[in-house]
Amino acid sequence: MAFVPDIGWGDSKRDGIRFMRQSAGRGIHLGSADEDRRPAAVHERRLDALAEVAVKAGLGLAAGQELIVTAPCAALPLVRRIAEHAYKAGAVYVHHFFTDDEMTLMRYRHANEAAFDFAPEWLFDGLANALANGAARLTVVGGDPELLAGEDPAKVARARHASAKASRPIMELLAGVATNWTTVAFATPSWAKAIFPDAPADAAVARLWEEIFLAARSDGPDPVERWRAHARDLEARAKFLSNKRYATLRFVGPGTDLRIGLADGHLWQGGLALSKTGLVCSPNIPSEEVFTTPHRDRVEGHVTFTRPLCLQGSLIEGASITFSTGEVVEANARVGEDLLRRLLTADEGARRLGEVGLVPNSSPVSKSGLFFYNTLFDENAGSHVALGQAFDKCIDGGDRMDRDDLLAHGANRSAVHIDCVIGSAHMDVEAVTADGRRERVMEGGEWVSSAA
Amino acid sequence: MAFVPDIGWGDSKRDGIRFMRQSAGRGIHLGSADEDRRPAAVHERRLDALAEVAVKAGLGLAAGQELIVTAPCAALPLVRRIAEHAYKAGAVYVHHFFTDDEMTLMRYRHANEAAFDFAPEWLFDGLANALANGAARLTVVGGDPELLAGEDPAKVARARHASAKASRPIMELLAGVATNWTTVAFATPSWAKAIFPDAPADAAVARLWEEIFLAARSDGPDPVERWRAHARDLEARAKFLSNKRYATLRFVGPGTDLRIGLADGHLWQGGLALSKTGLVCSPNIPSEEVFTTPHRDRVEGHVTFTRPLCLQGSLIEGASITFSTGEVVEANARVGEDLLRRLLTADEGARRLGEVGLVPNSSPVSKSGLFFYNTLFDENAGSHVALGQAFDKCIDGGDRMDRDDLLAHGANRSAVHIDCVIGSAHMDVEAVTADGRRERVMEGGEWVSSAA
Repeated sequence: MAFVPDIGWGDSKRDGIRFMRQSAGRGIHLGSADEDRRPAAVHERRLDALAEVAVKAGLGLAAGQELIVTAPCAALPLVRRIAEHAYKAGAVYVHHFFTDDEMTLMRYRHANEAAFDFAPEWLFDGLANALANGAARLTVVGGDPELLAGEDPAKVARARHASAKASRPIMELLAGVATNWTTVAFATPSWAKAIFPDAPADAAVARLWEEIFLAARSDGPDPVERWRAHARDLEARAKFLSNKRYATLRFVGPGTDLRIGLADGHLWQGGLALSKTGLVCSPNIPSEEVFTTPHRDRVEGHVTFTRPLCLQGSLIEGASITFSTGEVVEANARVGEDLLRRLLTADEGARRLGEVGLVPNSSPVSKSGLFFYNTLFDENAGSHVALGQAFDKCIDGGDRMDRDDLLAHGANRSAVHIDCVIGSAHMDVEAVTADGRRERVMEGGEWVSSAA
Repeated sequence: MAFVPDIGWGDSKRDGIRFMRQSAGRGIHLGSADEDRRPAAVHERRLDALAEVAVKAGLGLAAGQELIVTAPCAALPLVRRIAEHAYKAGAVYVHHFFTDDEMTLMRYRHANEAAFDFAPEWLFDGLANALANGAARLTVVGGDPELLAGEDPAKVARARHASAKASRPIMELLAGVATNWTTVAFATPSWAKAIFPDAPADAAVARLWEEIFLAARSDGPDPVERWRAHARDLEARAKFLSNKRYATLRFVGPGTDLRIGLADGHLWQGGLALSKTGLVCSPNIPSEEVFTTPHRDRVEGHVTFTRPLCLQGSLIEGASITFSTGEVVEANARVGEDLLRRLLTADEGARRLGEVGLVPNSSPVSKSGLFFYNTLFDENAGSHVALGQAFDKCIDGGDRMDRDDLLAHGANRSAVHIDCVIGSAHMDVEAVTADGRRERVMEGGEWVSSAA
């Protein structure tokens, strides 16, 4: 499951004005009657559909809720549509907090040293209180993935640490689905440029929008029902797999033969989540995965990543890892091997698995063949494992267990959670039941019919 | 003194994109090297100067402070420059909260009835805590003054009431100058259109910018020092007048013969304010006034307003009022008489004066001859009186007095504070000292040399 690492302050570069200019040129904006040109009108409808999917199916917003939206400045046209759908659904107040890359960079360029250990606790605490009191939360991602790549890594690390610490209450509320929340994407020029570095800016943005609308199922009739049906399919598959109570999954493909013992009392999740306030939400749009918790001590064999990994603006490519009794014992990469090794030494839990997710190779994100520099998309490019923190809700009763209990069930604990895609058209997945029977789950990257 | 009635949520219409488009057309934006065309470059420099004046002279920002900025979306280019100057001055964090008229209107158009009694207390309380802990506060005004003119007045009133109630702690902190704060303006298209309804949009915005830069003294060399010198002049004049300990001011001009007894222990203020955190700020940019507290029971005679008044999107023009023992006993207006009468019955204090301000007729705002639909400017068009609430700090020791004490000194109390311009080129102001001597203060709308 993708998880925006803080409340969204400080992403995405120089888009506000660039996107506005571009939008103006293409007529992609609100409120003007003289621009009903064909491509613009189509884009308008799809943007509106994405907003409607986000509010109705993503959040399942209830009348009387506050809604807290965080977004890059450039995403203003989408946020306006989200606000409209939210008010129509009975929201009492839509808060919109915009991030701006120019101002984020100005802090790195001009602020005193002391600034980088500061985080606005009053604001994070206020947001946490609002969420604890039932406000809904919507994050629009789309920032420049390379925004801070040129800044002093020590400053970046300190600012991230301060922000992560101050926003921990928020993260825990969202991880525990204390309230309904969702995440959607907006195609900013800087993000599009990272994905399509050689394309003209307009074409890059247009191509990224195609992928976003396709993955969000908001490009055809009745998009809300289409997303709900998709999410229910994922939920049904997760229930089917939970009921199987498999002991082990075995992944076999080029460069991979990995046996992942699943945690005791593991549950599969996917598509939908039920908030503690009783609302059904879809936390990630898009999402193609069902996922659960491996047993931190029961992972054996070797695995080769089939997609790159983007960490702190740097790439890891062609990585392969060997596990023994759950722990990474060997790791190398064609690109970014040092970064991979640093990641693995972040803490003890960073060398063990906290998630295994199954995604068919025919998912829209996978078929695009693109690397999105964004986990919301990239983890849906194929089956994946995550190094680090496990999700409590993937253990039966896990959200009421203490740390020792969770650890005793095999759920890993770490300050990091890094999704690594290992699936491909050549990946087979076999499951072993508690009584030793073998069942095919995926073949050539696709679900076998008996697992549907 | 102008006072933004809440923290700025919910003003100014459809500017985000319109301004961005227009800016793009005229090349008025950041970060692109191919647009150093002459008018754009000049505008850039003046915008940067305005930001520098706001941070250095307006806020007197100290190293280590948080800065909380509220602004219309369209003001992003100014807010970016403010952030840059703030970080260079040692800010640890610049918060930017953008308002968006589209989303404000969506709430009126689509939200349930219950929404209009809601205000986000968690956010207002958080902001109040931040200010109480020393964060600096900067408000960028520039919203569409007529944004809510077409909405249900009952909804508007309820939303304003809920917002005013929740933001009272913030207002009290700012009124008491608990921390350093300032207010500057940004020329949005909707605001410019209200002022210049017949001009093309670009020309209207350009003309409004001229007035803003002129009034803020940011149109020439060394703008920070020019503003400081101007503010020090106002402060010196306020001290001069405070030392005079006048008993009464008498305003005489066409349609006006008004005697205003001043409050016991009154102090004149102007230009600068010393925050409780020991920082010198200039809360209003522009500001041309020195002001003090009338005695609520000692106002006699009649006065004719020389400029229109804009209240809740409606105009009052050609108003005249008669006072007896401090209270309004007669009021009429050529336009908006009903509105004026409703205002006067808001509460008991709404029928008495809470401020008298002296502004020379040669002030830039006055010379412009424009009605700005915004108190930050309009109260600087001439000498003025305000119906309603008095400022504690205009009584010697007033910020440590309780309500009864302030009332005993003659300081008025009300939920409203409405500035009404009464000055003109034909207004004379005479003062009477405690021992009965008469001194000329203003002649033909200008300071007499002996009062300088």
